[in-house]
Amino acid sequence: MEKSFKYNRLAKDDAALLLVDHQAGLISLVQDFSPSEFKNNVLAVAACGVYFKLPTILTTSFENGPNGPLVPELKAMFPNAPYIARPGNINAWDNEEFVAAVKKSGRRQLIIAGVVTEVCVAFPALSALEEGYEVFVITDASGTFNEVTRHSAWLRMQAAGVQLLNWFGMACELHRDWRNDIEGLGTLFSNHIPNYRNLMTSYFTRSE
Amino acid sequence: MEKSFKYNRLAKDDAALLLVDHQAGLISLVQDFSPSEFKNNVLAVAACGVYFKLPTILTTSFENGPNGPLVPELKAMFPNAPYIARPGNINAWDNEEFVAAVKKSGRRQLIIAGVVTEVCVAFPALSALEEGYEVFVITDASGTFNEVTRHSAWLRMQAAGVQLLNWFGMACELHRDWRNDIEGLGTLFSNHIPNYRNLMTSYFTRSE
Amino acid sequence: MEKSFKYNRLAKDDAALLLVDHQAGLISLVQDFSPSEFKNNVLAVAACGVYFKLPTILTTSFENGPNGPLVPELKAMFPNAPYIARPGNINAWDNEEFVAAVKKSGRRQLIIAGVVTEVCVAFPALSALEEGYEVFVITDASGTFNEVTRHSAWLRMQAAGVQLLNWFGMACELHRDWRNDIEGLGTLFSNHIPNYRNLMTSYFTRSE
Amino acid sequence: MEKSFKYNRLAKDDAALLLVDHQAGLISLVQDFSPSEFKNNVLAVAACGVYFKLPTILTTSFENGPNGPLVPELKAMFPNAPYIARPGNINAWDNEEFVAAVKKSGRRQLIIAGVVTEVCVAFPALSALEEGYEVFVITDASGTFNEVTRHSAWLRMQAAGVQLLNWFGMACELHRDWRNDIEGLGTLFSNHIPNYRNLMTSYFTRSE
Amino acid sequence: MEKSFKYNRLAKDDAALLLVDHQAGLISLVQDFSPSEFKNNVLAVAACGVYFKLPTILTTSFENGPNGPLVPELKAMFPNAPYIARPGNINAWDNEEFVAAVKKSGRRQLIIAGVVTEVCVAFPALSALEEGYEVFVITDASGTFNEVTRHSAWLRMQAAGVQLLNWFGMACELHRDWRNDIEGLGTLFSNHIPNYRNLMTSYFTRSE
Amino acid sequence: MEKSFKYNRLAKDDAALLLVDHQAGLISLVQDFSPSEFKNNVLAVAACGVYFKLPTILTTSFENGPNGPLVPELKAMFPNAPYIARPGNINAWDNEEFVAAVKKSGRRQLIIAGVVTEVCVAFPALSALEEGYEVFVITDASGTFNEVTRHSAWLRMQAAGVQLLNWFGMACELHRDWRNDIEGLGTLFSNHIPNYRNLMTSYFTRSE
Amino acid sequence: MEKSFKYNRLAKDDAALLLVDHQAGLISLVQDFSPSEFKNNVLAVAACGVYFKLPTILTTSFENGPNGPLVPELKAMFPNAPYIARPGNINAWDNEEFVAAVKKSGRRQLIIAGVVTEVCVAFPALSALEEGYEVFVITDASGTFNEVTRHSAWLRMQAAGVQLLNWFGMACELHRDWRNDIEGLGTLFSNHIPNYRNLMTSYFTRSE
Amino acid sequence: MEKSFKYNRLAKDDAALLLVDHQAGLISLVQDFSPSEFKNNVLAVAACGVYFKLPTILTTSFENGPNGPLVPELKAMFPNAPYIARPGNINAWDNEEFVAAVKKSGRRQLIIAGVVTEVCVAFPALSALEEGYEVFVITDASGTFNEVTRHSAWLRMQAAGVQLLNWFGMACELHRDWRNDIEGLGTLFSNHIPNYRNLMTSYFTRSE
Repeated sequence: MEKSFKYNRLAKDDAALLLVDHQAGLISLVQDFSPSEFKNNVLAVAACGVYFKLPTILTTSFENGPNGPLVPELKAMFPNAPYIARPGNINAWDNEEFVAAVKKSGRRQLIIAGVVTEVCVAFPALSALEEGYEVFVITDASGTFNEVTRHSAWLRMQAAGVQLLNWFGMACELHRDWRNDIEGLGTLFSNHIPNYRNLMTSYFTRSE
Repeated sequence: MEKSFKYNRLAKDDAALLLVDHQAGLISLVQDFSPSEFKNNVLAVAACGVYFKLPTILTTSFENGPNGPLVPELKAMFPNAPYIARPGNINAWDNEEFVAAVKKSGRRQLIIAGVVTEVCVAFPALSALEEGYEVFVITDASGTFNEVTRHSAWLRMQAAGVQLLNWFGMACELHRDWRNDIEGLGTLFSNHIPNYRNLMTSYFTRSE
Repeated sequence: MEKSFKYNRLAKDDAALLLVDHQAGLISLVQDFSPSEFKNNVLAVAACGVYFKLPTILTTSFENGPNGPLVPELKAMFPNAPYIARPGNINAWDNEEFVAAVKKSGRRQLIIAGVVTEVCVAFPALSALEEGYEVFVITDASGTFNEVTRHSAWLRMQAAGVQLLNWFGMACELHRDWRNDIEGLGTLFSNHIPNYRNLMTSYFTRSE
Repeated sequence: MEKSFKYNRLAKDDAALLLVDHQAGLISLVQDFSPSEFKNNVLAVAACGVYFKLPTILTTSFENGPNGPLVPELKAMFPNAPYIARPGNINAWDNEEFVAAVKKSGRRQLIIAGVVTEVCVAFPALSALEEGYEVFVITDASGTFNEVTRHSAWLRMQAAGVQLLNWFGMACELHRDWRNDIEGLGTLFSNHIPNYRNLMTSYFTRSE
Repeated sequence: MEKSFKYNRLAKDDAALLLVDHQAGLISLVQDFSPSEFKNNVLAVAACGVYFKLPTILTTSFENGPNGPLVPELKAMFPNAPYIARPGNINAWDNEEFVAAVKKSGRRQLIIAGVVTEVCVAFPALSALEEGYEVFVITDASGTFNEVTRHSAWLRMQAAGVQLLNWFGMACELHRDWRNDIEGLGTLFSNHIPNYRNLMTSYFTRSE
Repeated sequence: MEKSFKYNRLAKDDAALLLVDHQAGLISLVQDFSPSEFKNNVLAVAACGVYFKLPTILTTSFENGPNGPLVPELKAMFPNAPYIARPGNINAWDNEEFVAAVKKSGRRQLIIAGVVTEVCVAFPALSALEEGYEVFVITDASGTFNEVTRHSAWLRMQAAGVQLLNWFGMACELHRDWRNDIEGLGTLFSNHIPNYRNLMTSYFTRSE
Repeated sequence: MEKSFKYNRLAKDDAALLLVDHQAGLISLVQDFSPSEFKNNVLAVAACGVYFKLPTILTTSFENGPNGPLVPELKAMFPNAPYIARPGNINAWDNEEFVAAVKKSGRRQLIIAGVVTEVCVAFPALSALEEGYEVFVITDASGTFNEVTRHSAWLRMQAAGVQLLNWFGMACELHRDWRNDIEGLGTLFSNHIPNYRNLMTSYFTRSE
Repeated sequence: MEKSFKYNRLAKDDAALLLVDHQAGLISLVQDFSPSEFKNNVLAVAACGVYFKLPTILTTSFENGPNGPLVPELKAMFPNAPYIARPGNINAWDNEEFVAAVKKSGRRQLIIAGVVTEVCVAFPALSALEEGYEVFVITDASGTFNEVTRHSAWLRMQAAGVQLLNWFGMACELHRDWRNDIEGLGTLFSNHIPNYRNLMTSYFTRSE
């Protein structure tokens, strides 16, 4: 059998997490997810960053203007992460400090989520890909104006070689094996997947 | 001008809250809302019950079977509320203990949310209406199998005289005036309306 | 409190089931449900008829022409039910034999499902209503060309006083109390609600 | 049993058909149906008018301006029908000539279809209702800007007492019994319901 | 023929326009319309107010907080209109100054649009109805969190007797006859209905 | 003409079927299909496995926990198939026993369906592709949380070289020619495509 | 500039049209288009075949069984076209007579439309591609069970190199220049694009 | 790390803007966007052309026929742009004058928007790609008959190498850094993104 495809698989020790422009103003522009779902997804991807101890980089665009401040939850979850408040670069990769932080992480896999998908996510994704990184975009923690825009942004990124996956896929690909930590992963899922929490509630109630 | 319509308006001192069958198993049947949205809405309506100090009644159906236990958050939020684990009555209003608890509340307005909409919500709603109560169904904290079912359940209830409104409408109709407690209402909204939280984040950041 | 609304509630001893024109050709016109869902719903409402021992009447329109024969499952489930193959009346209520069969059932509540909603269901529903029957249309076992048509048919029927509900609501309203027969109702749900079956599978596996 | 509802049923000898403002310009504003579906529905309701020999009235609004001429097919199908090119009245019922034509028809049931639903249909529907006519709006041969608008127009008309139904429901309610003319009705359906034509094709092929 | 329905028809000399809480912050919560569509609709209903010289009342809720200021366009279009910045009343009708302004207008028909539908629109609509006003809610210039919420708000208002219609229906019902001012109405449509503008562009180009 | 594309076509003697994690708990998380449709599709793909005598491998993840047991129907349909209850590996391909079973089948084409799409299906699909297998994912027997997740999972798999097709496409590509067994294929379709069953019912009724 | 992409553009003298399995029974399975739209699209692509004088091949599968006869309109439009009633091959390309007819056409571009998309269209499309043909699938004249199936079928074909386009794109790519025949192309569009017909009606009315 | 992907990034000095066939008649055919949204998007992409001083080329097809004149706004925004009224070529790239204008711009990146997507946009996009240009299609300023058509047109273009992005992505990719002109970009967004305008209104109100 011929073996031409290489499965670039997320690995805890290879990956860094980039959270781009999840700012109070910009998030209010997002309409391709319901606000409750989007909030949950963003917090879930951040919780993955914490849980898997991924080097994480926060960045914002123009946070003193209408775009607004980073949502406080993210700042609180990563108190020691590099935080690059970009003064003007729209593509985070155009910001030297940001790229330096990425390089300092020493990771070759970049997991990116942000607002809005076709700009704050797609631009650094394409730039990083050109630099040779493996790029994974978390599709359900990246939001934009509407579904038409999301769809075209995905097609542009797919064509370039970005791997598209949701936060749950990211968590599972990083964790590899439930036995590495059953309780930890279960808690992560329970906190961010209401129906998984329901399964656990029913299960543990019955097991008592 | 003729005045034939009477606006039966929710009032803090007239209303009781009935949370019907939000059980771990039954909620997993709900597909007319995304799970994250539905969870948020259910917790929001419960938070309204706490905030407005509404007499609240919890009830479940067959909780030792596949329907599963009440979701723990609700039990925790109303530790002292009447809790009627119905042994078999599908319509909660067929359970004497439940009706007694309603009557004991002394309220004439009943706010009902539950799972599933066309049964656990609609049946007691119609029964209570027949008894002369004013009935308000919280549409976004009541879930069911799909949108077709929801739609027909709503039309049946509307025709009977049920008032349909979402949890936000309920909160606003109960609160009447921001000046009664600006911070309290703001916190309620901030906790359950992500984009309202964003507005507050931007506002208070700028005001500092 | 004023008591002006009367809750006309389905009761096993008051209701008859009318299955109208679920014919192989006509069903292929239905596009407001996916075929798998619709088939499941029709068989579920029929299973309710059997389970609750409702007097059931089958009728078809022009079954030797393009409309096609009654789907064989329904015939098989009700081998002894009155079966009125209408030679031409579009509104089943215009057929004397059909009305005679309804009257012979002695029931005052008529549960109707059929194809297509705005004709084969709505016409006899409106006629029966005029005759003073309480009429319940099973919304998810009645199909039509598209959602626009369904929606307008529902509004016409709602305005006339038809009660709209799905088969699950019908089953629950008829059964009243799980204790009347836990296993029977559970089996009915397990056979026609895949996620309820899943709940039962998990529950009984754990309970073993 | 109480008999309070009266089923006002369409009857060939009681009904007139009013086709309002199906003009080339106005139809291009319709987006709550795909153009092919809408065209088919409009021609179908017109074909019903011809087939059932309903007194039919055509009217247009400002047809020398941007609203454009009546679509030629309708004019061709009713060469002898009263044709009222309203010089300015938006509500056709405000036009004396139009009302005179309606009255001259001697019918008490008015079937209305037109463009756009909330204006050209709803206005004369409400006016006619006030005059004591029974009014039937053909929902799928009446189009408007989008589904939100359609939905609110339907609710306004439903509340007033308009009966909402699609062209197929209209045809069936008028025809009453296939035996009145099997071939004629079959042809009507075959021409305007592609899947019914398919049923007939298969049926007659096999019967040969 | 029986004449039981009364068509309460909008009339220029009977109607007042109430624009409720179209504030920069609150509008960002609206997700049942795309932002471009909603902006267009709100400006259109305002343009109708100006064009038909309707007494117009502006009101806001808590405009110094997160809800944000009235969108500047509305203020600019009605520089002399009563402007009631409510300090805390959620239901505008609870504000004496607002009700006084309504009464001072001398009108018995109230046209209401606002944000969000189930609160800022529905509450004063129901209150005004109780006071005997004829109430018309402009459905496409009133926005809310999602379609579920909109739908239940509409059903609550419909049941109470509110007439639901879009801004175009409002304009047409007020104008009555194109001949009253062809150019004025045409300009209004051209400014807010892009495809009507296209019809006019094509028409006048050809007519030159 | 240039011939660069190679059509890797499913063949009965080259293909194995892998059913991954269709467990009672996990299936309750699936919301990108209605439950009835999904159940039908899963049973259909399994029926294909039986009918075409494909080597079939069953696997589950953590079946003693909240994920729940394999749905009993699948176990019953493949009583002798290798059944690998993975103790912890999320990607089935990380389980040596599973890969050994795949290798033992001797097939180079792997047909995969499972729950959830982006994890239980996509991970082994990508791993197998890297190993040189031809991989076919059955899109309608693989479910996940919502359509956004499905869409991104598909794009990731498409980019890697997975062939996406539904169970009906799989059946037809394997069967090649109706004449190989008309009755068998017809029965398969009749059991799982309600409208195909309707076609057969009408056909055979007429042919009698 | 680098020139690596070659635009394989449809040309009248290079293309043949293959209409696969548009049979009365199979078409009734199509639910990813409304029946009226689908019928229009199929007739439109056929009308293109006639208008552009493309060598056209008709084929059916099992037309004496439940799949039903070819829709009569297509047979009538191509009385002299090769018509291959396949006795059993599901993939038309497996039928020697069909492939011979394709080869005899001498064309290197194959335009394919059929029912259902993922089988009757995709299979010969992939086979022809492997043989070195340029393949164009007419997406809106090819129908299937639902949108999920369509979407995966498209992705499979896109990955293989099929060019996806609708019938209008096909017509325009073939025609190249309006001046080749203004009236002919206009008639084609007028017959199958209702809003284009409306544009023409308005235009020619004004030009008179 | 391997670097095989090259990010062809829009640059102000490399790009030209091609606006193809935004004509009053053709735009009325567009139904994959609401008219208000589409108008806004088209004017936004044009405003980007003006703001970034991109060489811009306007072209129309058959503007004296039913397709109608260019929408006047575009002509007014680019009074000095090359304007090629194509007498018959459907693919603008088949028009020598058009290609000459493109070449004269000296740009290697072509940004294309137009009506309809699969023809007026896709054809010149594919032709330009073949000529070695980098091609960017503005997805939300290009409209067509429906979403099915749009989707297949996008897949065809993606496969060929077209980069798909919305006007906002285009603006951001061209601008690179807010500091290049904060006020200018802010104004552009404020004019065409209503919720961004709201953010600015709230921000500047608070900052005063």
